[in-house]
Amino acid sequence: MEKSINKIGVLTSGGDAPGMNACIRAVVRTGIYYNIEMVGVMKGYQGLIDNEFIPLPSHAVSNIIQRGGTILKTARCMEFKTKEGREKAFRNLQAQGIDALIVIGGDGTFSGAEVFSREFNVPVIGIPGTIDNDLFGTDFTIGFDTANNSVIQAIDQIRDTAASHNRLFFVEVMGRDAGVIALWAGIAGGSEAILIPEKETAIESLISKLAEGAENQKSSSIVVVAEGEKSGGALKIAEEVKRRFDHYDTKVTVLGHLQRGGSPTCFDRVLASRMGYAAVKALLNNVEGKMIGMVNNRMHFTELSLAISRHSPFDEELAEIAAVLSI
Amino acid sequence: MEKSINKIGVLTSGGDAPGMNACIRAVVRTGIYYNIEMVGVMKGYQGLIDNEFIPLPSHAVSNIIQRGGTILKTARCMEFKTKEGREKAFRNLQAQGIDALIVIGGDGTFSGAEVFSREFNVPVIGIPGTIDNDLFGTDFTIGFDTANNSVIQAIDQIRDTAASHNRLFFVEVMGRDAGVIALWAGIAGGSEAILIPEKETAIESLISKLAEGAENQKSSSIVVVAEGEKSGGALKIAEEVKRRFDHYDTKVTVLGHLQRGGSPTCFDRVLASRMGYAAVKALLNNVEGKMIGMVNNRMHFTELSLAISRHSPFDEELAEIAAVLSI
Amino acid sequence: MEKSINKIGVLTSGGDAPGMNACIRAVVRTGIYYNIEMVGVMKGYQGLIDNEFIPLPSHAVSNIIQRGGTILKTARCMEFKTKEGREKAFRNLQAQGIDALIVIGGDGTFSGAEVFSREFNVPVIGIPGTIDNDLFGTDFTIGFDTANNSVIQAIDQIRDTAASHNRLFFVEVMGRDAGVIALWAGIAGGSEAILIPEKETAIESLISKLAEGAENQKSSSIVVVAEGEKSGGALKIAEEVKRRFDHYDTKVTVLGHLQRGGSPTCFDRVLASRMGYAAVKALLNNVEGKMIGMVNNRMHFTELSLAISRHSPFDEELAEIAAVLSI
Amino acid sequence: MEKSINKIGVLTSGGDAPGMNACIRAVVRTGIYYNIEMVGVMKGYQGLIDNEFIPLPSHAVSNIIQRGGTILKTARCMEFKTKEGREKAFRNLQAQGIDALIVIGGDGTFSGAEVFSREFNVPVIGIPGTIDNDLFGTDFTIGFDTANNSVIQAIDQIRDTAASHNRLFFVEVMGRDAGVIALWAGIAGGSEAILIPEKETAIESLISKLAEGAENQKSSSIVVVAEGEKSGGALKIAEEVKRRFDHYDTKVTVLGHLQRGGSPTCFDRVLASRMGYAAVKALLNNVEGKMIGMVNNRMHFTELSLAISRHSPFDEELAEIAAVLSI
Repeated sequence: MEKSINKIGVLTSGGDAPGMNACIRAVVRTGIYYNIEMVGVMKGYQGLIDNEFIPLPSHAVSNIIQRGGTILKTARCMEFKTKEGREKAFRNLQAQGIDALIVIGGDGTFSGAEVFSREFNVPVIGIPGTIDNDLFGTDFTIGFDTANNSVIQAIDQIRDTAASHNRLFFVEVMGRDAGVIALWAGIAGGSEAILIPEKETAIESLISKLAEGAENQKSSSIVVVAEGEKSGGALKIAEEVKRRFDHYDTKVTVLGHLQRGGSPTCFDRVLASRMGYAAVKALLNNVEGKMIGMVNNRMHFTELSLAISRHSPFDEELAEIAAVLSI
Repeated sequence: MEKSINKIGVLTSGGDAPGMNACIRAVVRTGIYYNIEMVGVMKGYQGLIDNEFIPLPSHAVSNIIQRGGTILKTARCMEFKTKEGREKAFRNLQAQGIDALIVIGGDGTFSGAEVFSREFNVPVIGIPGTIDNDLFGTDFTIGFDTANNSVIQAIDQIRDTAASHNRLFFVEVMGRDAGVIALWAGIAGGSEAILIPEKETAIESLISKLAEGAENQKSSSIVVVAEGEKSGGALKIAEEVKRRFDHYDTKVTVLGHLQRGGSPTCFDRVLASRMGYAAVKALLNNVEGKMIGMVNNRMHFTELSLAISRHSPFDEELAEIAAVLSI
Repeated sequence: MEKSINKIGVLTSGGDAPGMNACIRAVVRTGIYYNIEMVGVMKGYQGLIDNEFIPLPSHAVSNIIQRGGTILKTARCMEFKTKEGREKAFRNLQAQGIDALIVIGGDGTFSGAEVFSREFNVPVIGIPGTIDNDLFGTDFTIGFDTANNSVIQAIDQIRDTAASHNRLFFVEVMGRDAGVIALWAGIAGGSEAILIPEKETAIESLISKLAEGAENQKSSSIVVVAEGEKSGGALKIAEEVKRRFDHYDTKVTVLGHLQRGGSPTCFDRVLASRMGYAAVKALLNNVEGKMIGMVNNRMHFTELSLAISRHSPFDEELAEIAAVLSI
Repeated sequence: MEKSINKIGVLTSGGDAPGMNACIRAVVRTGIYYNIEMVGVMKGYQGLIDNEFIPLPSHAVSNIIQRGGTILKTARCMEFKTKEGREKAFRNLQAQGIDALIVIGGDGTFSGAEVFSREFNVPVIGIPGTIDNDLFGTDFTIGFDTANNSVIQAIDQIRDTAASHNRLFFVEVMGRDAGVIALWAGIAGGSEAILIPEKETAIESLISKLAEGAENQKSSSIVVVAEGEKSGGALKIAEEVKRRFDHYDTKVTVLGHLQRGGSPTCFDRVLASRMGYAAVKALLNNVEGKMIGMVNNRMHFTELSLAISRHSPFDEELAEIAAVLSI
């Protein structure tokens, strides 16, 4: 039997990502367009448990499309991993009269959503909002494009000074398990090498490449390092290289959380708008328990259980392009 | 019989687009990687005719990936539209020993390439470099994403002041025949209305929408207008609205050619890199007479003759999303 | 006799300027630091008359230092120009128990403040918040630096494409009566000519300069035009030049109100912070009826009556530098 | 007796700074305007010794005003610290017919210049180009404003995510001996605390301030740390704070050399243009052995010997403002 959806709650959870606000706006505006009452849940699942709900009329999401962060805030929530926590959350939802949930976040967010929706038969749609772009079932996650652009801006600025001196720069970017930001931003930044968790870092070949560059009077050498790189990140690598190859003066930049902020790019805002719009329409069409994704430029749904059990495959072709273009 | 490719020329033609330099770099680096001699042709087809060639060793494309414009310059060339012009061009190519051409530009560029390659049996690959994103055979053209981001930055800045006053702002963006920049940037900028060449501008409904917004105390109203909009662009529309609806003070911004410049975004740099890389590999595999495109995130080839005879279809779904989200 | 100041109101008025929020924050935080109760007046003088006051505790100004616009909004207010309007405003102030006012804006704002403070003996300090940098008594106004940077970013982007084609670009910037933005941004943008209200535009000499550039194969020509330029702004000038000199293709950008928005620069935020801080301290020291300014990097007070009766002098030396560097 | 100046050499030395190119352009254009032959020296003093000179006609400095880095490159040069090195440099200068030098850099640069000009009676003018803004004799150095803006952009992005979580962020900025970037950018970034080499870092008071913020439910805490901060920089401080106060999750960003790059701001470009222009005019008026500075918005000359023996005083008032506004 079809469930009647009259009131939808929306929350953001996990690490925040630029474009989450654009997505909240799209969810809210689309809901209102279809005469749904829209409610925000503060601080992710914690707000479900703590009963922190706020009404979201149309003007509540005015002037937020361009803002980084999330007006609903996020938080990690251990309590939601317990049955008791989820029961509390469900009772609060019922008390509020909320019929369905839209959760914006990464795979931790979706794991919670998947269990919760199964246990209490609550319709849930997940929207991939994370800079990491590592989710199965979507070509792009909200925030990835903005993070990439933050990184290449940093690399461009470093290159200005790299072009003036004979120096070797290491730039550490986010990516504990996946090197996809490093790969994209490394290519786009024109970096000399890209070190990622998916591959062993061969210090010898890195040094011989840098030595070759030095011989060819390449004045500018920038190495992009994902934080999850196996020898321990940019600071460790830089030390090791310095110890073995003293031609260059070695400098390190650790970008850290600035990659999670900033005004979202056009791509992320449009992606967030499309996903938010489609997520609400899906709920109204009794789709549930799925993550929305963009696959081949079209909206596409994947079972939450599938989305959390796999990862997007590593893009070997892009790695090949990176290698060829950094000659 | 397969043609042996030992020397490739590359040129940029038509309106320039951010990412052209990133594409030139990818073409050159990939060619060198495969032991091809790489040559640049200055000022598009004009340089072919005027015999303006420059050698492009690897370091000639260092430190350009982040630069707007094109190091090879572009120019319109009437002479190449004549048989005599093209013959001159061909003789110069032969004298240089250039076996194949890669041309980066829009549909004017490809029309020239298509005729030339047919007439003289010169292998040519076209790469879509134009901010307009109106080419058949590719989901995205190089430069579109950067142009969109330039536009939304302008809209964001205008919104700051829109949120402080009660004002109505018109922002004119590029798009003589197609409203795709207006559509994307209008959605991403959270604009109240988007006026494009593909649709009649219904002044009455625009005014009633603005009036409704004014009643709901919406302080911020931004209308994005493609230059090819049918009533004559932003200045004309603004006058007309002001005449009929005096609630708001009306202001106009005409962005003009700043949309063609700027440092390319990560998306455009990666797209340019992928396309440049694939174009060279295609020539080496005796693909010719085609435009490379990105379709469903994969490199894809379309006959030049087809690419120039069609346009990408208008995205009705995006227009629908724009309408829903601007309530 | 010294007035006891326990409650201060703050408002923004006139055209908004980036850095107004940073200034509001500084005013509020400094007041609270000195145990003053801080109140915001919405929409400039209109809010005084309409009794729109909001409490401003410390957290009300959190996270606004980086925002363009003004959280207190601005509006033009004809009623405050009447005695009746000002009486109403005064009664509201008294009812609120507000002892003193800080007004952030331009010379229109200060004219109102000057009359009001004289009529009702209300201590007022004016803070120069306007992008126009045309106020007597301060070397810089809040917002000028940000506006300049918005303009040069636009010029830089246009230059990318200017360097690729043979084109002549006109960029219209703000400045109805004064060409100071045009002058600074024109120098910083490396423009070929700067047309401002303070000087007659000699079309002949402009054209001969452009012709000279064309002969020297200067591919890039950008002319910055203040909106108050005497022949009627960029669109008019461009037409005129095109009519007389057809060597170049002529393009126009009208930046408009995007110059009033954007996240304030470091310079503007520090200036706003210093001025806001000093304004509160001045009131507490019974300084009143003055505009604060920055003269020779130090805070400096000027009688409001003087500030509104004069303008900063035109900087002939800067104009000379502009001429020499554009050879 | 007055020296006749017909040919001027210009070089950049030490750490590069955004705006150096704008300054080179101004030096070259002004020289040419006064019919001086202009020559560039590559890689600072090293190029003097290695005889690396390049002619600098007007078009050589076209389209560089907006570029970070320096087209003349910089290098540290030990050899110039020896008498033999300087003799070699002088002979090369003589062979080139160069009558005077303009050196752009920091105090290391000026120390070399001071000795060299004394020993060989070569007219030299120093221009302060360094992001550190620590030179005696000028209110601002070229590059400082751009570096500040790079830092606040990073802080703004971090604040987006800080506002979403309960986290404590440490941002390490440049400043080995002086905290002036930390101070300006810390105020402009709205940071909760600023740790600089000039002051002891009182861990206890920092923690009690953070604890107080946490109690007041301040979700966003950003601490700016100059690299020369006495407990060892951001990484060390973050560890120490984490050990003692576990309320927040602690994150570190190390900006590193991106602060030396980027397109210069309007302020830096105008400052560089004014200084470059004035430096050439000074040489032509037989001023020599001095550093040009901007004091109270006017060009001002200081003996090189004085400029290198003192530092700008610490700005206690700004530190006081920082403390008051971060309540």
